[in-house]
Amino acid sequence: MRDDRGVTGVLYGVGVGPGDPGLLTLKGRDILLRVSTVFVPAPGADKPSLAMSIVEKAGLEDLDFRRLVFPMSRDEKTLADSWDAAAAEVCAVLGSGKDAAFITLGDPYVYSTFSYLADGVRRRLPSAKIETVPGITTMNLAAALLNRPLVEGGERLCLLPLPEDLGEIAVLARSFDTIVLYKIAGRLREAAAAIAGLGLSDSTAFVSRAGLPDQTVVPALDGLPADAAGYLSVLIVKTGRRA
Amino acid sequence: MRDDRGVTGVLYGVGVGPGDPGLLTLKGRDILLRVSTVFVPAPGADKPSLAMSIVEKAGLEDLDFRRLVFPMSRDEKTLADSWDAAAAEVCAVLGSGKDAAFITLGDPYVYSTFSYLADGVRRRLPSAKIETVPGITTMNLAAALLNRPLVEGGERLCLLPLPEDLGEIAVLARSFDTIVLYKIAGRLREAAAAIAGLGLSDSTAFVSRAGLPDQTVVPALDGLPADAAGYLSVLIVKTGRRA
Repeated sequence: MRDDRGVTGVLYGVGVGPGDPGLLTLKGRDILLRVSTVFVPAPGADKPSLAMSIVEKAGLEDLDFRRLVFPMSRDEKTLADSWDAAAAEVCAVLGSGKDAAFITLGDPYVYSTFSYLADGVRRRLPSAKIETVPGITTMNLAAALLNRPLVEGGERLCLLPLPEDLGEIAVLARSFDTIVLYKIAGRLREAAAAIAGLGLSDSTAFVSRAGLPDQTVVPALDGLPADAAGYLSVLIVKTGRRA
Repeated sequence: MRDDRGVTGVLYGVGVGPGDPGLLTLKGRDILLRVSTVFVPAPGADKPSLAMSIVEKAGLEDLDFRRLVFPMSRDEKTLADSWDAAAAEVCAVLGSGKDAAFITLGDPYVYSTFSYLADGVRRRLPSAKIETVPGITTMNLAAALLNRPLVEGGERLCLLPLPEDLGEIAVLARSFDTIVLYKIAGRLREAAAAIAGLGLSDSTAFVSRAGLPDQTVVPALDGLPADAAGYLSVLIVKTGRRA
């Protein structure tokens, strides 16, 4: 699509939601159908991209998808180099006057990588316009699957990666009605034990791969399956602090 | 629509997002098109319903909308009575084997009234199946409009109604990277002054009526217009605690 607002194209960051293709927004779908290129994050050139498969399952199969490879690495130089290469690729499209989108799981501004890409694009092409379309987050879908409110009335919620020091959960439980823990990865058993130690197993839910065909929804931690894993998952602790 | 899964219909709680009709999800739209009745919360029999106007602007004008009146009241008996009357109306539809939806601004489980309705329906009609479709929340749209991440990497966020004691903001700023304040209502000036007292005006954004035609997006509190009001608005404080 030619950009009629100026020489440089627009970069859209589009959140595709956590997994269920029905949770793409109308606006997100319309933008993906309109842009010339849809960039997708992928862990390798031949590796599957979860965000891309969600968009395809939403019926958008014929888009010009282009993978941006972000290797699974914790090395800062490797990561910075891959973000820079990604920004260069995106800017080549925008610089030709065409619009592009970058899709992210969940929401572009909740534990996503879109802001790193946007920063790189701003540095290389200050005239580029960047717009963001929010997406449904894992915690909102998990609450829907559980049919359990995240916050009501005067309640307070906190959202954080599982802390290194699990003792912090007890401190947060005194000030918050709902504690949402992301980035559990290999520490699910450890986290469940800490929550059990606070007497909160009954009111803590575990949801894994929300919205994907193999999702797991566990309303209370006593029912945690032996093979449950912490990847792409969330713990939602209702602390009952007002009870 | 006849329900072929049993005698009782399904109640769908559908989040329609904060205001932009494009932020309705594909699944939300499909369900609204499929159910026999779409219940909408309204402050009075002749008062406009914001959630209904969003759905209409999303192109769904010919639905069988039915208002459930929730008077603007803080009297518990008045509120309980109106919830009970609302549940009775919904159960009349479900009991006849038809599916119904209830639409809410934002997400059905983030400071919404859907859970009160769902509780009433469960009491009256235990066989009713209740499903929820998440919606985009104000905080996610506000972040998109600001092009500013809510949380990245190891960051922590808290979400709460503006506290009675504004001194609590200083305490939260020590433990959280992002503080999201809802339910500001008539206390915007007071809140802005408290945030200025912490030296955080520059990194605090104010967004009002996000997604509606008259939205206000203020990236730093120094730019707060004199006529800004706290209704349907959010303050997002970036505390810089790791800086």
